[in-house]
Amino acid sequence: YAAAMPVDLSHASKVLDRFVVRPGSRFRLKDHDPGWRGEGDLAELSVKELKAKGRAFLERNVVALSRAQELLWANGTYGVLIVLQAMDAAGKDGLIKHVMRGINPQGCMVTSFKQPSAEELAHSYLWRISKALPRRGQIAIFNRSHYEDVIAVRVNPHWLERASLPPSVLDRMPPRRSFWKRRFDEINAFEEHLVRNGTVVLKFFLHLSRAEQRRRFLERIEDPAKNWKFSASDLAERAHWDTYQEIYEETIAATSSAGAPWHVLPADHKWVARSIASAIITRAIEALGLAPPQVGDADRAHLAQARAALLAEE
Amino acid sequence: YAAAMPVDLSHASKVLDRFVVRPGSRFRLKDHDPGWRGEGDLAELSVKELKAKGRAFLERNVVALSRAQELLWANGTYGVLIVLQAMDAAGKDGLIKHVMRGINPQGCMVTSFKQPSAEELAHSYLWRISKALPRRGQIAIFNRSHYEDVIAVRVNPHWLERASLPPSVLDRMPPRRSFWKRRFDEINAFEEHLVRNGTVVLKFFLHLSRAEQRRRFLERIEDPAKNWKFSASDLAERAHWDTYQEIYEETIAATSSAGAPWHVLPADHKWVARSIASAIITRAIEALGLAPPQVGDADRAHLAQARAALLAEE
Repeated sequence: YAAAMPVDLSHASKVLDRFVVRPGSRFRLKDHDPGWRGEGDLAELSVKELKAKGRAFLERNVVALSRAQELLWANGTYGVLIVLQAMDAAGKDGLIKHVMRGINPQGCMVTSFKQPSAEELAHSYLWRISKALPRRGQIAIFNRSHYEDVIAVRVNPHWLERASLPPSVLDRMPPRRSFWKRRFDEINAFEEHLVRNGTVVLKFFLHLSRAEQRRRFLERIEDPAKNWKFSASDLAERAHWDTYQEIYEETIAATSSAGAPWHVLPADHKWVARSIASAIITRAIEALGLAPPQVGDADRAHLAQARAALLAEE
Repeated sequence: YAAAMPVDLSHASKVLDRFVVRPGSRFRLKDHDPGWRGEGDLAELSVKELKAKGRAFLERNVVALSRAQELLWANGTYGVLIVLQAMDAAGKDGLIKHVMRGINPQGCMVTSFKQPSAEELAHSYLWRISKALPRRGQIAIFNRSHYEDVIAVRVNPHWLERASLPPSVLDRMPPRRSFWKRRFDEINAFEEHLVRNGTVVLKFFLHLSRAEQRRRFLERIEDPAKNWKFSASDLAERAHWDTYQEIYEETIAATSSAGAPWHVLPADHKWVARSIASAIITRAIEALGLAPPQVGDADRAHLAQARAALLAEE
């Protein structure tokens, strides 16, 4: 594993690239194994050994990511937007916690998008998203996002009734297919604008198997300390499993762009998803080629004056 | 040091209590040594040995704080507001980075308050503060705060001209002493409201010596990688050093309350300030006595139904 995913991320590109959804390529979710946990020599290792390797890899990445983020913050030129989407219990919260652990919280903002409020519904679905975008120098993480408005809302189209859309936008219920396609176009245009103006956009789908979700739900039900993480609505959404998978597939294919690519992360093993996400985020920030900000000649003169004044004090 | 500040924070209370400014007590900054780094046996140790001990202590606290925050988040009842104030280069940014490192960024939000924008100046000075308050379950950190409006603004009263205050509030320039006293009352009332409604408020003054600020400024000037951290205005504020110290002293004495106490942290040794802050924050959250949320009887019945449905699947 250490060989396949070395700390020097430039050599890991090939491994990481396999998780990117290439724009325009034929994308099928079933070509992606949620249970993937490495290959070659790695297949020989026990789950426990692999887990230890994954953890050590993540640990080193946390340090690299922390360094990359310091430069991002010091430069204040680029922002990073990380979008996380998944079925329930796929590990979004755990990924945020473990991948971002080493990050200076001053340069990182996490927003969870839940059922929209009345005020949010009184605006376009991108309004609340815009308010949570990263400022320059910052990493913003979306725990769910505007993609709920083309995924969960598409599975539950009656939710649209609360949105008071004009008839020119929504002329019947459930909406026509073209309604969702227009939203894809809107999202692509929105993200392209962000990318062109200095935001690095990385989108992750944590790809969980149906069997693993069942196992994790049972764990949440059977362990009293985890009960609060389980809600009755989780099972209602699970009943739509196949519909969700189809819609995720169509949405990811339609909205993975060169500037704002989707990544499909195998999520049945938590530390696999975390390691890959961590490496991809670090690589993307390092690819900006940032160096500590240099001062100009005028500023250098001011610094020299300030130094002289301080030295003269005593 | 390990004995004086054990991991079991309940036993560390006496040590931690010395940094709290007791409401109503006579408070003088000069009674607090910015260079404090422990006492008793600790005074025998070299700076290097002490630093190692401080680091190890902080490391353990980071774990304890992370656990305390998980419970805070899971319960979603209390919020925590941490206010950081200090002279430039006292180590606010480093403290946030090192103390909050182990925290799940999902439950932590940092806001830096800089020169107010035109929109912010069109409102009361508490408006932008209110927008950045922690939601229940969250820790919010203020890197500078509403205290700038009674400290930096008091040192530079002409800044008030941009605030368009009505003559009933500000009848002359520079303002009378009563203007600042009224602001103290307003801040006390504001914080009391927060505390009564479930926000834990902890305020920290990072107490730096004038000599140590000089040393750190010179370091920022002489190390090109740190140049970007130094601004010409830093020296302008340093010129008002004594005024700042007097105003900090008066402000801290007037606004340290039982519910929202000020802590004066010795800041000449960075790891001392970080260790103490970390212990005080952890202790305050642990004092809430939170346990993992328990489900009620109705919810328990739903869980049992959900379990049966999942088990019946295969």
